[in-house]
Amino acid sequence: MSEPLRLGIAGLGTVGTGLLKIVQTHPDLLAARAGRPLAISAVSARSRGKNRGVDLSDYDWEDDPVALARRDDVDVFLELMGGENGPAKAAVEAALASGKHVVTANKAMLAIHGQAMAEAAEAAGVALRFEAAVAGGIPCVKALAEGLAGNRITRVMGVMNGTCNYILTRMAKAHLTYNEVFEEAHALGYLEADPTLDVGGIDAGHKLALLASIAFGTRVAFDAVQLEGIDRVSIADIEQARDMGYRIKLLGVAQMTGRGLEQRMQPCLVPAKSPLGQLDNAMNMIVLEGDAVGQIVLRGAGAGEGPTASAVIADVMDIARGAVLPTFGQPASTLAAAPPACSAAPAPYYLRLMLQDKPGALAKIATALGDAGVSINRMRQYGHDDIAAPVLIVTHTTSPDALAHALAGIEATGTLVDPPVALRIEEV
Amino acid sequence: MSEPLRLGIAGLGTVGTGLLKIVQTHPDLLAARAGRPLAISAVSARSRGKNRGVDLSDYDWEDDPVALARRDDVDVFLELMGGENGPAKAAVEAALASGKHVVTANKAMLAIHGQAMAEAAEAAGVALRFEAAVAGGIPCVKALAEGLAGNRITRVMGVMNGTCNYILTRMAKAHLTYNEVFEEAHALGYLEADPTLDVGGIDAGHKLALLASIAFGTRVAFDAVQLEGIDRVSIADIEQARDMGYRIKLLGVAQMTGRGLEQRMQPCLVPAKSPLGQLDNAMNMIVLEGDAVGQIVLRGAGAGEGPTASAVIADVMDIARGAVLPTFGQPASTLAAAPPACSAAPAPYYLRLMLQDKPGALAKIATALGDAGVSINRMRQYGHDDIAAPVLIVTHTTSPDALAHALAGIEATGTLVDPPVALRIEEV
Repeated sequence: MSEPLRLGIAGLGTVGTGLLKIVQTHPDLLAARAGRPLAISAVSARSRGKNRGVDLSDYDWEDDPVALARRDDVDVFLELMGGENGPAKAAVEAALASGKHVVTANKAMLAIHGQAMAEAAEAAGVALRFEAAVAGGIPCVKALAEGLAGNRITRVMGVMNGTCNYILTRMAKAHLTYNEVFEEAHALGYLEADPTLDVGGIDAGHKLALLASIAFGTRVAFDAVQLEGIDRVSIADIEQARDMGYRIKLLGVAQMTGRGLEQRMQPCLVPAKSPLGQLDNAMNMIVLEGDAVGQIVLRGAGAGEGPTASAVIADVMDIARGAVLPTFGQPASTLAAAPPACSAAPAPYYLRLMLQDKPGALAKIATALGDAGVSINRMRQYGHDDIAAPVLIVTHTTSPDALAHALAGIEATGTLVDPPVALRIEEV
Repeated sequence: MSEPLRLGIAGLGTVGTGLLKIVQTHPDLLAARAGRPLAISAVSARSRGKNRGVDLSDYDWEDDPVALARRDDVDVFLELMGGENGPAKAAVEAALASGKHVVTANKAMLAIHGQAMAEAAEAAGVALRFEAAVAGGIPCVKALAEGLAGNRITRVMGVMNGTCNYILTRMAKAHLTYNEVFEEAHALGYLEADPTLDVGGIDAGHKLALLASIAFGTRVAFDAVQLEGIDRVSIADIEQARDMGYRIKLLGVAQMTGRGLEQRMQPCLVPAKSPLGQLDNAMNMIVLEGDAVGQIVLRGAGAGEGPTASAVIADVMDIARGAVLPTFGQPASTLAAAPPACSAAPAPYYLRLMLQDKPGALAKIATALGDAGVSINRMRQYGHDDIAAPVLIVTHTTSPDALAHALAGIEATGTLVDPPVALRIEEV
């Protein structure tokens, strides 16, 4: 048996603890599969005394993750602290500069500093891997960068934030408003200290930007992700979309078009019978589309101790087996700066219009749509009270520009009680 | 840029042709991702003159695949001919003996000779990879052997034969019998020359045996797969299972239990709302369960030129990038001979009993079940003609032995018009 692969683990929260449990529970299994044992040299975390339910007595302790990253007896530095700057960034930079492989679950850090870190890793001839940063336990980085390496990728989609999918599912099943479910989730401790990271789509946007880089051979461009959270999704839209055969999901979509690289993270309608439409609760799903393979769908837990640690250890196992692949699927120096698409690809849209109950109102709406070149696929008017009639429209495929023009025209008719709601329908 | 990786391709049917198209269409993309160009040195097939819609003029031609496998200008030998013995086996053995990496899509060959070939590959220090042999374009071998390498695998399941899933879907949607759909598929050219490979579950059984080897660290044991085809699945069972909230799938299941390694490929009921239950037409699905990651579901095309070639090229790209992993996830010499489980794990069962329409018949059935220790979860009796009343029963979890005992007792009552139907319900 070869020499052990020696690990230094910085961060003993949920993921770090889960990783220790795997290494402690299955040493023989891991050694058989890796061809060599895994050994933990030292660990680091903010609080040494905290009881984490795992035995740390065999490992050295380092208060400073940077010192841990530089230890001579560490071959792989595992950054499981989080935070896009601060100690995480300093420690990863120190590890790479010291010629250590790095495995991280830190999507925020990589979404900002991924390019520089990938270049540093390649200059040092070491691996920088991040399977756990995207969709937790789902091996989607590997599927995309390796399993689909022979494909020109045409589109990457996914539900990448379990909290958002849980909130949307709960709204739909319990007929609750966004605010009601948000308060409930808060009371149950499901939300991050800063819930905007989840419900604002930022966390999922980080993940999308990382996948887009691999898919399209471009530098990570989180700033160019068009972000929209779920806080404005209404129970009315969830239920009326359902009546039309759709579900509302916080969906990430990345595709390279003639207009440039399109990256969107926004509430979208997807067909209720599609795998994405059927994804309930906190599950994640990644959809990869390539010119040869067609569509591949990956489903699993996107967070949690076991699933995330499973992804971290997979990266470690690859390194133990001798695989040193480029961080984003090809050498970082060859990644292109992709021009962000100035507008999204054409798509059908769902419109909900709260119409004044007056003769001729619907005719004015239809005229405004027609004038903008937006044609109607399906329309429904619901029963209503005295003030407003909800009108639902599914358009044929239309450009976002034409849609914006139509919505302006509709508002100008003065027939709406509330601003119009328009949600993109993603064809899956 | 490094030296090209030189390929020799034996077999220019659907998969070989698809592979050539990928290599010819995306040379720069592949070179960027692999860090080196791919170059095809020579090809081989049964008929040189056949028009395959791809240009072969840049490649040497070999009539003999064994000669191709031994060429000095071949680094990777691609075996895309098929057949468990004959030229495929001879050429792979020649390639390995000559120190060439081998990539194959040949599940039948590996299900029989996988252990010996893996040992030969490891002795030569080369890779023997087979992503395309299981579930076509779905990168499930990679997901299992690499992505879930830190997990003790608890169960592997899957719909691994698109033809069978197509037939079962078509029966359900068009209300046709197995024989009607079989004839239809035959007329459309969807079936293999020997359709038993598909509808008898043999092809899917080969795939299951390969996945089980990786999952449980055991030598491939195709002989120990409990095989049952779909030819006895009736439209009555499909429709009545649907009424009870289930779908019938040709489902492969492998799990290690206290009784040994259980490998089954048989028609099973799965919940209609589960990802497996929702899988229609010729799609494939692989479900991987691990102690840390929970359940991972992978969905995609299991056959066809593009998807299968996508899997072949993924293996080539790994080799180009320098990854030489053990064929079955750990060194072949360390794979254990797993004792086949003498019986399957307990499960609920679906029973369809065509009962004589006589007073007391149902009581006798219920007594026979009770005497065998099989308890009833749900029961339905359908409207009927004068001769027989169809009775559907979903049992609670029961051992296959108790079930067999119960079925013998039921038959002994003399109340059945037809032999009883019993199908396992796999909890997913």
